[in-house]
Amino acid sequence: MDFNAQMDKWTQLVNNALDDYLSINEGPGANIYNAMKYSLMAGGKRLRPVLALAVCEMLDGNRNEILPYACAIEMIHTYSLIHDDLPAMDNDDYRRGVPTNHKVFGEAMAILAGDALLNGAYELMLAASVSDSGNRDARLRAIHIIAQAAGVDGMICGQVVDMESEGKKIDKDTLEYMHRCKTGALIKAPVAASAVLCGASEKDIKNLESYAENIGLAFQIKDDIMDVNGDPGQMGKAAGSDAASGKSTYVTLYGLENARAMLDKTIADALGALEGFGDKAGFLKDLAAFIRDRDH
Amino acid sequence: MDFNAQMDKWTQLVNNALDDYLSINEGPGANIYNAMKYSLMAGGKRLRPVLALAVCEMLDGNRNEILPYACAIEMIHTYSLIHDDLPAMDNDDYRRGVPTNHKVFGEAMAILAGDALLNGAYELMLAASVSDSGNRDARLRAIHIIAQAAGVDGMICGQVVDMESEGKKIDKDTLEYMHRCKTGALIKAPVAASAVLCGASEKDIKNLESYAENIGLAFQIKDDIMDVNGDPGQMGKAAGSDAASGKSTYVTLYGLENARAMLDKTIADALGALEGFGDKAGFLKDLAAFIRDRDH
Repeated sequence: MDFNAQMDKWTQLVNNALDDYLSINEGPGANIYNAMKYSLMAGGKRLRPVLALAVCEMLDGNRNEILPYACAIEMIHTYSLIHDDLPAMDNDDYRRGVPTNHKVFGEAMAILAGDALLNGAYELMLAASVSDSGNRDARLRAIHIIAQAAGVDGMICGQVVDMESEGKKIDKDTLEYMHRCKTGALIKAPVAASAVLCGASEKDIKNLESYAENIGLAFQIKDDIMDVNGDPGQMGKAAGSDAASGKSTYVTLYGLENARAMLDKTIADALGALEGFGDKAGFLKDLAAFIRDRDH
Repeated sequence: MDFNAQMDKWTQLVNNALDDYLSINEGPGANIYNAMKYSLMAGGKRLRPVLALAVCEMLDGNRNEILPYACAIEMIHTYSLIHDDLPAMDNDDYRRGVPTNHKVFGEAMAILAGDALLNGAYELMLAASVSDSGNRDARLRAIHIIAQAAGVDGMICGQVVDMESEGKKIDKDTLEYMHRCKTGALIKAPVAASAVLCGASEKDIKNLESYAENIGLAFQIKDDIMDVNGDPGQMGKAAGSDAASGKSTYVTLYGLENARAMLDKTIADALGALEGFGDKAGFLKDLAAFIRDRDH
């Protein structure tokens, strides 16, 4: 199966599973289920759960065992978007072309829907872990990996740094720290958690973590490069808008040519980390190339 | 040790443990640790973790094993207060006599500090569960119990119903459903989780859950009674303010005398559920009486 067909197949699998997991309860307060589902089912490539499924397939793991953890990470990602979009945070009215959660359900409900998706991620992972008596150590370790990635030393701290950096110049170390936390942590978590659940060796887990760290970084560098020389029609914003707004990016801090060289190096490092997995790593390799070559 | 001395001792134990667990990291974004700690260490009786410790002592459990789970529930309780106080929710400027989190740290940071405390509760419980190789089944089950109590079918749904009921008359079933979810679930969770971690029999777990459900209900009925005949100086608000604001309470829906009878019955049921535990249940019995007799 080619890369795009495989990606679509896994995206669809994740969408179906998410739709299954999030039941709509009737009775008092039921509107929150609609608010949760509105943002959770708003689409996207489902990069994080797809990464978990791709690692599972490469390691000959049991896909049904991985799926609840993979979907839980997507729930955590979705909660973070709902809260980021709030008026007190980024104050965004639209996401992926549709009104943001608080524009549809109100601010109070959007806060609670975010809370419920974050907590729901743990409910989902714990329900899966309790219901099956095997593999207890790996399950606890996988949930712990995900919790740390989502927490105050991971994604949340990245959001704090991003918020506190607004309108300010930041240095290279702070830029890297921010991206490692804000988006990198939740790209690494599905890869590491899936490898742990599939019973990978510590060496394989480490190599897969290195792959994930590098594609996470590459994703951000590519974003910054596209901001200065992307097609405004594809990007949905004017070229150079980061520099114009005084935002520190890989391009403003390193220059365009250096940023391009860094992109190539992170992709090469990502591919290097996959060497030991041979042909089975085809999808993960294609995914790294996809991140380098995308135009929006 | 008498009831008050025991309560103070456990409250202090919980305060020390919470202070230990929440380290203040240096570096970019570190201000969020201050925001988390500000609300987490703002005081109170620590009713929820104390319940877990009291059950543990009664069942001759290992207190150090229970403590992370007990403190995690207090972190969940604290996050819910921070988010409830936000301008988009109850818009409260003060809690326990000090400015609310968003008044000190701003709305965006208060949202993130709440998120970080909720996620941090799971980080704490999972770290404790991963580090000790014993008792895996009980640990997973205890975290699952807590997650369900905090989630959209527990505390969060109670908050949604409360929010949607504002300024409206609600019926008796909705009133009970709201309180069972909003406060009852997180009073039951420490009792049930502690019992599970201590290896209690299913019959004992069931009886302790019944005790917790009844004191949770008694707590709310007593609140509603105090609103109409409490001492305004002790209560911090005018007598009859619930009725004046059109709020549905146990007193407005059932009448004062019936509410008093319901309070007595829930306390009797709570004590009845403890019968099988004999003298060892002394603290839990005293706690039920304390809830019935308190004047603020």
